[in-house]
Amino acid sequence: MKALVYHGPGSKSLDEVSRPSIADPGDALVRIIHTTICGTDLHILKGDVPTCTPGRILGHEGVGVVEEVGAAVSAFKPGDHVLISCITACGRCEYCRRGLYSHCETGGWILGNSIDGTQAGYVRIPHADTSLYPIPAGSDEEALVMLSDILPTGFECGVLNGKVAPGSTVAIVGAGPIGLASLLTAQFYSPAAIFMIDLDTNRLAVAGRFGATHLVDSGESDATATVMALTEGRGVDTVIEAVGVPATFELCQELVAVGGIIANIGVHGAKADLHLERLWSRNIAITTRLVDTVSTPMLLKTVAAKKLDPAQLITHRFALAEAMAAYDVFARASETGALKVIITP
Amino acid sequence: MKALVYHGPGSKSLDEVSRPSIADPGDALVRIIHTTICGTDLHILKGDVPTCTPGRILGHEGVGVVEEVGAAVSAFKPGDHVLISCITACGRCEYCRRGLYSHCETGGWILGNSIDGTQAGYVRIPHADTSLYPIPAGSDEEALVMLSDILPTGFECGVLNGKVAPGSTVAIVGAGPIGLASLLTAQFYSPAAIFMIDLDTNRLAVAGRFGATHLVDSGESDATATVMALTEGRGVDTVIEAVGVPATFELCQELVAVGGIIANIGVHGAKADLHLERLWSRNIAITTRLVDTVSTPMLLKTVAAKKLDPAQLITHRFALAEAMAAYDVFARASETGALKVIITP
Repeated sequence: MKALVYHGPGSKSLDEVSRPSIADPGDALVRIIHTTICGTDLHILKGDVPTCTPGRILGHEGVGVVEEVGAAVSAFKPGDHVLISCITACGRCEYCRRGLYSHCETGGWILGNSIDGTQAGYVRIPHADTSLYPIPAGSDEEALVMLSDILPTGFECGVLNGKVAPGSTVAIVGAGPIGLASLLTAQFYSPAAIFMIDLDTNRLAVAGRFGATHLVDSGESDATATVMALTEGRGVDTVIEAVGVPATFELCQELVAVGGIIANIGVHGAKADLHLERLWSRNIAITTRLVDTVSTPMLLKTVAAKKLDPAQLITHRFALAEAMAAYDVFARASETGALKVIITP
Repeated sequence: MKALVYHGPGSKSLDEVSRPSIADPGDALVRIIHTTICGTDLHILKGDVPTCTPGRILGHEGVGVVEEVGAAVSAFKPGDHVLISCITACGRCEYCRRGLYSHCETGGWILGNSIDGTQAGYVRIPHADTSLYPIPAGSDEEALVMLSDILPTGFECGVLNGKVAPGSTVAIVGAGPIGLASLLTAQFYSPAAIFMIDLDTNRLAVAGRFGATHLVDSGESDATATVMALTEGRGVDTVIEAVGVPATFELCQELVAVGGIIANIGVHGAKADLHLERLWSRNIAITTRLVDTVSTPMLLKTVAAKKLDPAQLITHRFALAEAMAAYDVFARASETGALKVIITP
């Protein structure tokens, strides 16, 4: 089969590799219908993720058809259409019992990281009963690829951790796919205002179409001053960090109101300054989270009920044979306007 | 009347000053029965609290008897014995309506800060209806001074924000009066283990008597290694920061388990490093809080029910005429073994 293979920092290629097979009774073999590329894949290619070693097939998102299951799999059978979660979970360890699936002792984020991933014709999914979701009949399967990672990530790490509430104010720092996923799902809770902050005017325009009430171009204006002026100097109740660098985390600390929450989603490669000399008395919280995908069944219902339209996050489509071009378009998002690119074997 | 007056950084004296009087219809004039000194008073004397200006009577804790009330006060009358909250709250502003009394727009922590405090024969209490609590008949009034500030602070900022739970693990960094207040109130929730971490062997011994399950002398051993060995390498669910310097906040980040909380109580004068490069994926929360004293009525019930014995925090007693000596004993706590010192006019 064809697969997009990581060959070490800066190096990848579309290779012909052998098809995976069932290795454990809990495994399912899934034929990929659609997959996509994540910002995390670009991190891997920069060499930022040491657990991902050369020879690894990338990708941790996708929808597919079950081809074969191990003897212990009871929830799925060949022919079932399934959504692949970016998080593999045994369902039995201490972390899984607490709903912290992202920290599963024999799973977590392993797909396209420490085991082969979804940017291929087929993928082996361990702990299949608790790592796949059945796709409701009649679904737009391409759109559901957005539920493998970015929508639960934006929702759980940003909206749920940030306790977005009716009438509250929300600022989202970073209007990339994850920030936009937070923007879409924040609207479940009817906040009074959503400030979208970015340097990229194209992405801000998308945020405006997706429901942001205020667009703040942090290259053109002082974002803190703008948001403070719009909140009577109080700041905002929920600040969602969707970039992952010290400067944006610093901005979040300036924006958060007394009693507010900074919900971090960004993947950080360096420490940041925490201004406890100002924040110690402001009754705030800062949260971090690797997505657990506990909300996937709920998100599937919101899609079916047309409360959430994941398809609008898709900007480009490629065949698996064009995966190298797909990476190029995705990596040059500021020029190409790419949000999520669909890859179809 | 006699009063302990702040005269600028490093300078205080016991002065003869005029008795306060009702200035607003919501005020009560309270005759002090007992008051005490807080670590925050020492911060003021170092010049760390610019809102506190020379000439100010210090003190934000105490019990007393209502001497006189303004025309708008309806919950108290002369002769009532009252507990004075360190937080003055109007009960009507946006923050008060949300229970964020510490951020009351015309109150908050003002006593012994921006208005005259309790280390005196009498004190004027604004917003008396919502800033005083009736003392139940038969109470040990001296012990209830511990409910003005340190017990609600240790409980709300440490135990409640830290979500201490049955069977959970707790680490308290700093065994001073506030850390000990967290230790006493954490036990309401039956955690499996409470690790008390300090450099002061005397205070650790007190913590042992107060119910800590493990005493960690961070001067003698590597606190992180010790706690990790005792938690199968997982770290602890609730880490309470009760010191307020960058090094102890750093230690908290090393101790917190996946899914855990760092509940900051410490008054910080400088920024700290936040290791997001490690913590971004660990599903943790960091909270800050200025005590709101929302738990004071509940704590009064726990004292009455003998679930909490505040008297054990009191180590020394002085007359108001000896207030200068009381400060000296409190400031040299590592030599004198002082926890809380009672001052009685």
